[in-house]
Amino acid sequence: MNTFGQLFRLSSFGESHGRGIGGVLDGCPPGLTVDLELIRKELSRRRPGQSALSTDRNEADEVELISGIFEGKTTGAPIAFLVRNTDMRSQDYDYLKGIFRPSHADYTYHSKYGIRDHRGGGRSSARETIARVVAGAFAKMLLNTMNISIEAFTSQIGPIVLEQQDSTLFSSELAAENPLHCPDREKAEAMMALIARVKEEQDSVGGVVSCVVRGLPVGWGEPVFGKLHARLASAILSIPACKGFEYGSGFDVSQKGSQQNDAFYFDGERINTRSNHSGGIQGGISNGQPVYFRAAFKPIASIRIPQETVDKEGAAVKIQIQGRHDPCALPRVLPVVEAMAALVLADACLMAKSKERIV
Amino acid sequence: MNTFGQLFRLSSFGESHGRGIGGVLDGCPPGLTVDLELIRKELSRRRPGQSALSTDRNEADEVELISGIFEGKTTGAPIAFLVRNTDMRSQDYDYLKGIFRPSHADYTYHSKYGIRDHRGGGRSSARETIARVVAGAFAKMLLNTMNISIEAFTSQIGPIVLEQQDSTLFSSELAAENPLHCPDREKAEAMMALIARVKEEQDSVGGVVSCVVRGLPVGWGEPVFGKLHARLASAILSIPACKGFEYGSGFDVSQKGSQQNDAFYFDGERINTRSNHSGGIQGGISNGQPVYFRAAFKPIASIRIPQETVDKEGAAVKIQIQGRHDPCALPRVLPVVEAMAALVLADACLMAKSKERIV
Amino acid sequence: MNTFGQLFRLSSFGESHGRGIGGVLDGCPPGLTVDLELIRKELSRRRPGQSALSTDRNEADEVELISGIFEGKTTGAPIAFLVRNTDMRSQDYDYLKGIFRPSHADYTYHSKYGIRDHRGGGRSSARETIARVVAGAFAKMLLNTMNISIEAFTSQIGPIVLEQQDSTLFSSELAAENPLHCPDREKAEAMMALIARVKEEQDSVGGVVSCVVRGLPVGWGEPVFGKLHARLASAILSIPACKGFEYGSGFDVSQKGSQQNDAFYFDGERINTRSNHSGGIQGGISNGQPVYFRAAFKPIASIRIPQETVDKEGAAVKIQIQGRHDPCALPRVLPVVEAMAALVLADACLMAKSKERIV
Amino acid sequence: MNTFGQLFRLSSFGESHGRGIGGVLDGCPPGLTVDLELIRKELSRRRPGQSALSTDRNEADEVELISGIFEGKTTGAPIAFLVRNTDMRSQDYDYLKGIFRPSHADYTYHSKYGIRDHRGGGRSSARETIARVVAGAFAKMLLNTMNISIEAFTSQIGPIVLEQQDSTLFSSELAAENPLHCPDREKAEAMMALIARVKEEQDSVGGVVSCVVRGLPVGWGEPVFGKLHARLASAILSIPACKGFEYGSGFDVSQKGSQQNDAFYFDGERINTRSNHSGGIQGGISNGQPVYFRAAFKPIASIRIPQETVDKEGAAVKIQIQGRHDPCALPRVLPVVEAMAALVLADACLMAKSKERIV
Repeated sequence: MNTFGQLFRLSSFGESHGRGIGGVLDGCPPGLTVDLELIRKELSRRRPGQSALSTDRNEADEVELISGIFEGKTTGAPIAFLVRNTDMRSQDYDYLKGIFRPSHADYTYHSKYGIRDHRGGGRSSARETIARVVAGAFAKMLLNTMNISIEAFTSQIGPIVLEQQDSTLFSSELAAENPLHCPDREKAEAMMALIARVKEEQDSVGGVVSCVVRGLPVGWGEPVFGKLHARLASAILSIPACKGFEYGSGFDVSQKGSQQNDAFYFDGERINTRSNHSGGIQGGISNGQPVYFRAAFKPIASIRIPQETVDKEGAAVKIQIQGRHDPCALPRVLPVVEAMAALVLADACLMAKSKERIV
Repeated sequence: MNTFGQLFRLSSFGESHGRGIGGVLDGCPPGLTVDLELIRKELSRRRPGQSALSTDRNEADEVELISGIFEGKTTGAPIAFLVRNTDMRSQDYDYLKGIFRPSHADYTYHSKYGIRDHRGGGRSSARETIARVVAGAFAKMLLNTMNISIEAFTSQIGPIVLEQQDSTLFSSELAAENPLHCPDREKAEAMMALIARVKEEQDSVGGVVSCVVRGLPVGWGEPVFGKLHARLASAILSIPACKGFEYGSGFDVSQKGSQQNDAFYFDGERINTRSNHSGGIQGGISNGQPVYFRAAFKPIASIRIPQETVDKEGAAVKIQIQGRHDPCALPRVLPVVEAMAALVLADACLMAKSKERIV
Repeated sequence: MNTFGQLFRLSSFGESHGRGIGGVLDGCPPGLTVDLELIRKELSRRRPGQSALSTDRNEADEVELISGIFEGKTTGAPIAFLVRNTDMRSQDYDYLKGIFRPSHADYTYHSKYGIRDHRGGGRSSARETIARVVAGAFAKMLLNTMNISIEAFTSQIGPIVLEQQDSTLFSSELAAENPLHCPDREKAEAMMALIARVKEEQDSVGGVVSCVVRGLPVGWGEPVFGKLHARLASAILSIPACKGFEYGSGFDVSQKGSQQNDAFYFDGERINTRSNHSGGIQGGISNGQPVYFRAAFKPIASIRIPQETVDKEGAAVKIQIQGRHDPCALPRVLPVVEAMAALVLADACLMAKSKERIV
Repeated sequence: MNTFGQLFRLSSFGESHGRGIGGVLDGCPPGLTVDLELIRKELSRRRPGQSALSTDRNEADEVELISGIFEGKTTGAPIAFLVRNTDMRSQDYDYLKGIFRPSHADYTYHSKYGIRDHRGGGRSSARETIARVVAGAFAKMLLNTMNISIEAFTSQIGPIVLEQQDSTLFSSELAAENPLHCPDREKAEAMMALIARVKEEQDSVGGVVSCVVRGLPVGWGEPVFGKLHARLASAILSIPACKGFEYGSGFDVSQKGSQQNDAFYFDGERINTRSNHSGGIQGGISNGQPVYFRAAFKPIASIRIPQETVDKEGAAVKIQIQGRHDPCALPRVLPVVEAMAALVLADACLMAKSKERIV
């Protein structure tokens, strides 16, 4: 299950310490102008070493576009791409060969497959998300032609939470001021200080990403098992370390129906809702209001603090995880969240087109 | 998109006020003894009119098994089933023909399809979940042969929340005492009182379902885009009114990695974890610990309190929703949550079998 | 694998001597006027007992449309339908319970599933094709709105072959004169006489269906693994007793490239080809010329002549197959061939729509 | 639609004159020893310039295995691979930029996508089959562990046909003597002479491939829409230039049921059939006998003889196709036929595993 999407489909491949990470994007419509700058920008947002908040691993992450493009435009053929791994220090992982790191995929992969590329987490490494970011950039190119935008923010780090919970009210300008893309100056400072402290403690910390999609037309998403929010949840929860997803009013179930229902009104041009507890999706289908959702990311499991665990024979061992790891999934996960949302929306776009009234 | 699953696949059909609700379950392994009592029991848990907490609609919900069964056992052929609608009062919905109920799927279906069966919500009605409950019962029959159990609890109604958040510690015995299947006597009383009050007020209220799966072997779930929790999220969020999903530590990101990592140890027989913040899933694959997750359900959108809205021409209208509606998605949604989880797990079981080492 | 299609998808269910045969058609575009007469006509063409050429089993084959239709139009929701079995004589099959009929699916189903509904072939019965004919009628309704027609002819029975091999030159008028829909009066007579003789001999005979599709636009079909002819082949070869498929020049490989290449020319309005050895498909995509293909059907395996075989313990037994069986798959298979072609084309239509240039 | 398979899935990418051809193989079971020699051997059989019968294009076709392999074994992660294009002479194709070659995919791709990589046929080039051959080699590695063999023969070139039509009787030893892998010395000579003459005439010629699979267990293949022969047909007809597929008795429908039915008998160890008109498949499921099928390949459309055609404005032009082209799809297509058959069988193997009786 390394393929995502129905009509706009990414097949991802590669391991952390193998030859590289890449993907094949099938179903991208023809005639789309390829924006190389966008791909580079998105990769750069995800790349380690961009700020003091992240790991020291230093990958150039240059992408090679192998197929599906002719004279600067997509042709409708599959777009294959590859980002080669360069700054690997696989020997850093030798000591882990037969050991299961706590809260990692080591034990489950070992049990499922009986063989495991232990170097840097192999296939389960978050480095795999490069494939999503590149494919997501193509999805964004498609969405851009329809003036659809996607923006992810940091809204919580450890216990530091934004008071404003409605992310459709977040200020992109304020967010642009800090590397966390957090729309609150003071909170952003505190969050960065917390991440720095946690890094010093050789520990890690979790956080929450809030994401807003603007410009969606009415009618994207499929009823029953292809609901737009269910597809978004599946996409976002496929990102390593993601533990929860909610959209619109989400887990805030304390209000009554009379308070949470979104009244419709006609503004002279189109039908709108006075509030947006529905998060822009009703019955699984976009209603033309902004879509917004939140995603929880657990503290990164790789910490340098010594931990108890077992090896594959079941013998108790103590490990101290080496290698270069982020103290927090945020902010590097922000472009990955946007990319996965973009993949879901591009797919929903093509599905909606296929369903357009013929008769 | 009315089909769910890769190998164990349900195709659902039917409308609230059409001839009936049914499904086709393809991929169910052969030789499974069909437990009719289980199907009836699950349907009965979902059926309206079982307690003072739900709507008065009174459907017998008798299921006809049409195919795929021979001499009391599954044959490997698709299992079709149908529950006919009987107690419909479609005229109750005549006044809604051109009107969009707030926070319902009326407006989005109308916009997407240009045609809409308005009677009782048509295809978007929660009555569709009958198909999931029947198919889920077959999934449970399969899981039962492996001693895997699934149990859903009510853990929140409106602002009333259980203190104990770890649902693996919930008492099934205590839960069995009340119709909400809430494992806390006092809280259950308060929740039921709240639902009764809200019903009287012609309003509605939301809640949270906690669900525990026990007995899963290590190795179910597929990496990257088929992660077990992502499939569960997609399944659960496809249930009407569901707004959020979290598993394990979920949105509780305030702790550090050193606190949340689950240490492995060998108990003499197998490898276990000392804590279970991972929620029984690591890298998208079951690790042999209990799987637990929570799902948020918004207040039912159908309330009798008068509401502002528009008709399909955009004219402002005031509506007072008639028909028979629950004041709360819980407890009737509990068997639906279990059924969707069962469908995901049965599918994961077949996927895992297909991947078993050949060489 | 009881589901066919990517976007226009049929899930088929039912057994020969179970409660009935039916299907769920998902993805049919909304707003299509349901032509009940067409469904009845197609079912009637497939129904036994329509001419002296077929079995005596007498099924009314009344279809119940269960869902997905509102006020005479499709709604975009799944269309479930059911044709109940009525004229079953299951006891006719009791003697076959543990015996494998030669060239039937008895042995392979038994080996694969370990359990088998032996009555009338169970799931492997050609009665299953009712589901295809009903779903195919919906596909035809969709194609009709675009003036696309599909017509299947009998072009060979046993050794009696039409001289004219290019089915695009067949006369529909002549074909309409005889129950085989064979466009050659004399040959049709001879074929019917042969079928009658074979029936008398309690034997069976094979034949070839030729099918022509007119009115296809340029651009349907997907490159590489979704080629239009590959989808057609897969569809047609899924019909019981089908052993071969060819399109355009097919197995006639004796000519050279200079003879078989189809020269393009512009007729003032559009680009055409002077010949059509390509069968209307180039690179897997329709080129606007008529699509034509041929399908071979083996002699029906159920014959009354005594045969040697074994039972499930491997003991040699002699059987004489009872029950009511056709001496030839043709002409009853003609509407099934058309239906499968229609399903492929409706699906290709939706796929093509989804790929339409967005930018 | 550049992905093939349900569980053992190849996603193919690349163009004739782009950076290379490659694929991602997902679902390959873990622990399989990677036989690099086999991959090279299969690629070499497909490579141009191996005999006087084929084009002069000289590609080294060195494959890079990018992911999914660790210490010489498959890990269960997707296997990405890339064969870079090196000996391209794209300028050979400049004159074709706006011209539609007869019986090629130029016109249909242009119409469908509005943009086309005209160099060497772009995505529609037979060079794409490299991806199938590499993935097919992995499928063969899997099948080899079960002693399943696949062998393709040349059984017809132009009008020269083998008298022996039952390919299960072909001699592999005789076939190994000539580059066509034709099991008849004299006919092979004549066929090679014909290909040489046609090449001299700057023309091309068609042919038929016969393929035999031995060692299949009983029970592979899925009923109704996943029939083993329907999957094989879809696979084989997805190969460029393939126009027809038949298995077992195929288009030979002149015999009666009493002649074609395959009587079962027990040989002391297992159930066999006395004849094999069923081609090893009954009801879509393998019955343990050899599977054999035939595939027709039209004359290669690229001929140097001048041809009439039009350009994209519809103006009549005369073209003389340059570039390096084979005069016949055979013998280079033989390993491609085997590869596609291997992909179908590996997939059927995993599907059968997933269905194994659980209860």
